[in-house]
Amino acid sequence: MLSISQRGAAMPASPIRKLVPYAEAAKQRGTRVYHLNIGQPDIETPPQVLDAVRHSDFKVLEYSHSAGNESYRRKLVQYYHSVGVEVNHQQIIVTTGGSEAILFGFMACLDAGDEVIIPEPFYANYNGFAVAAGVTVVPVTAQIDTGFALPPIAEFEKLITPRTRAIVICNPNNPTGYLYSRAELESLKELVVRHGLYLFSDEAYREFSYTGELLSVLHLQGADEHLVVMDTISKRYSACGARLGALVTKNQAVLDAAMKFAQARLSPPSFAQIAGEAAIDLPADYFEGTKAEYQRRRDLVVRRLNEMPGVYCPNPGGAFYAMARLPIDDSDAFCQWLLEHFSYQGATVMLAPATGFYGTPGLGKQEVRLAYVLNLEALDAAMDCLAEALKVYPGRR
Amino acid sequence: MLSISQRGAAMPASPIRKLVPYAEAAKQRGTRVYHLNIGQPDIETPPQVLDAVRHSDFKVLEYSHSAGNESYRRKLVQYYHSVGVEVNHQQIIVTTGGSEAILFGFMACLDAGDEVIIPEPFYANYNGFAVAAGVTVVPVTAQIDTGFALPPIAEFEKLITPRTRAIVICNPNNPTGYLYSRAELESLKELVVRHGLYLFSDEAYREFSYTGELLSVLHLQGADEHLVVMDTISKRYSACGARLGALVTKNQAVLDAAMKFAQARLSPPSFAQIAGEAAIDLPADYFEGTKAEYQRRRDLVVRRLNEMPGVYCPNPGGAFYAMARLPIDDSDAFCQWLLEHFSYQGATVMLAPATGFYGTPGLGKQEVRLAYVLNLEALDAAMDCLAEALKVYPGRR
Repeated sequence: MLSISQRGAAMPASPIRKLVPYAEAAKQRGTRVYHLNIGQPDIETPPQVLDAVRHSDFKVLEYSHSAGNESYRRKLVQYYHSVGVEVNHQQIIVTTGGSEAILFGFMACLDAGDEVIIPEPFYANYNGFAVAAGVTVVPVTAQIDTGFALPPIAEFEKLITPRTRAIVICNPNNPTGYLYSRAELESLKELVVRHGLYLFSDEAYREFSYTGELLSVLHLQGADEHLVVMDTISKRYSACGARLGALVTKNQAVLDAAMKFAQARLSPPSFAQIAGEAAIDLPADYFEGTKAEYQRRRDLVVRRLNEMPGVYCPNPGGAFYAMARLPIDDSDAFCQWLLEHFSYQGATVMLAPATGFYGTPGLGKQEVRLAYVLNLEALDAAMDCLAEALKVYPGRR
Repeated sequence: MLSISQRGAAMPASPIRKLVPYAEAAKQRGTRVYHLNIGQPDIETPPQVLDAVRHSDFKVLEYSHSAGNESYRRKLVQYYHSVGVEVNHQQIIVTTGGSEAILFGFMACLDAGDEVIIPEPFYANYNGFAVAAGVTVVPVTAQIDTGFALPPIAEFEKLITPRTRAIVICNPNNPTGYLYSRAELESLKELVVRHGLYLFSDEAYREFSYTGELLSVLHLQGADEHLVVMDTISKRYSACGARLGALVTKNQAVLDAAMKFAQARLSPPSFAQIAGEAAIDLPADYFEGTKAEYQRRRDLVVRRLNEMPGVYCPNPGGAFYAMARLPIDDSDAFCQWLLEHFSYQGATVMLAPATGFYGTPGLGKQEVRLAYVLNLEALDAAMDCLAEALKVYPGRR
């Protein structure tokens, strides 16, 4: 009889969503809420990017090529060249956000019942795409005490079964901000080659690398067939609402299979491709400004966190997230309490409990993720709130 | 070892795509190609819709709500009210094109191994979404001699198994242009209620109804839990490149499940929602102009086709497609021959072989689909080409 699908039931709800009603109630009480819970930057989208859309003069808003406009793909070739990645326009499928690149990668490479190994904590929506594709996520735990470095390769090896098909990384990492080193990427490459696996690399935050070189898995040599990059302009140009990403690989069979999924949904959004094409022509120093701003924010947040008694926050090398260990009983309860029962100078802070980023039940109860997507003044005030909150939280340990 | 997924291999390629290289070669030889093969209208997108985007003045291109901007959903409530459908904004999930509405509907309601019954010929991409969801499409054949009317309910009943979960219709129909009557929709409603099935209704062409009343399955009474509408602005406002659609249902469990898939992909495109919102404010007579234009085109194409010896084309009641039976051996071979070996007064015509729209192997070999998306003059010239081609085609029967 009439019921939703098992996968619809198994599909995880957003781990942050359950806190939204508490945030809304806090605002209705007149409390200011500092949103450090989501990766929506306050950085302005470059005017040149928005103006390209605003000054467009076509008459019919047509479908584009299913792989994206060839003119945009050729521009992307230039962009990848500028970051040291040599691909041609036929090795790029333009997608509706990085989300669709993840979905196409999973659909093209993985079958129901297959397993993917993902270092945890990881971007919670990988769970969603895994459920959509019928794939099992097998977590391998990264430790806050090593700054969330890549777990030892031996830990990956232990988890490989005949159903393992891929390893998924996000670099620089959401939610930890960890920037994988070239040595770590090389060790992953050797692992996937040795075991005949795919290495999916979500590089949404590629430009936001503060402590090391900007690295893509496509810089790795001798493993082209194994490497699939999921990319997006959302964070790079503060253009999350464009919904424009790309799947990039030199594996022709994967391109051919992904292309069939791309054809089924007809085309990626046309307005966004105009914006994306203009973005490639931004001045070469565009990222320096945004990177410097994010680095100042990171420095502030990490310093303030580590000054709080009992708090530990490793210094993230990239992206715009920090994971902190707090002296609390339960991060879900704490984040809800912050919204429901706490305010300091008329304000409180919304954080993401880390439990939503772990696949292993029970992990993340002392950790929260902070997205430093607000200006320095707001971040400083948010840190004041958190410091005061930790003094009075009933579940403090 | 490294290989693509079975579902990637099973995924059907676009049935028209294999003809594209022949069309490109024809153009390189200097032959004009009349494209009646795809549903990309030449009708201009209403300037008010494009101007809303061009005159927007936000600074940050942000994610929207995962269900779409509330302001847009409230506008859509007005739109649905204007076509006699009463829903509230929480019964609408804004999607990235009608394509994503189909995907979310399938994912939320169907599991791998489940079956959906679809009257054939049907929109070929349903196959793609079915493969993505692991679902089996069971075709029930509509006959050209009845104008592709709904097959008798008894034919559906014969195909229902314990794994049958849904019936999918497209109304008005792509590829046949058939407009289901109220009586046909009522009989489908009784069927899905009796067997505990979903009725998915793709209503992309809702406004393009020439011979009868504009009907949505949401006009049906007493079956709210069973009815899921997949909608899009692509054809309605000639805005295919926006990639903006909607899943509409009064079934709360389906909404809740679909919403989790919507959250995983974060949000639908933001530019498109600005366009979509402006479209609701178009003058009430906007559709009269486009409908009258399409009706003139339909009348021309159907008359010209039926004047050709051995050709039969039922008069479609809606959408902008016609299916014609031609005196030919094989529609795939014929459509390729038109591009590869034929021209008349420097031009030829690109058609869609009907084989791609049937699930039953062997059907559609004498049929082609024509999209009347060009102006009257071009359509007339295209019909001249087709008439001449049928006189000389070596595979004529």
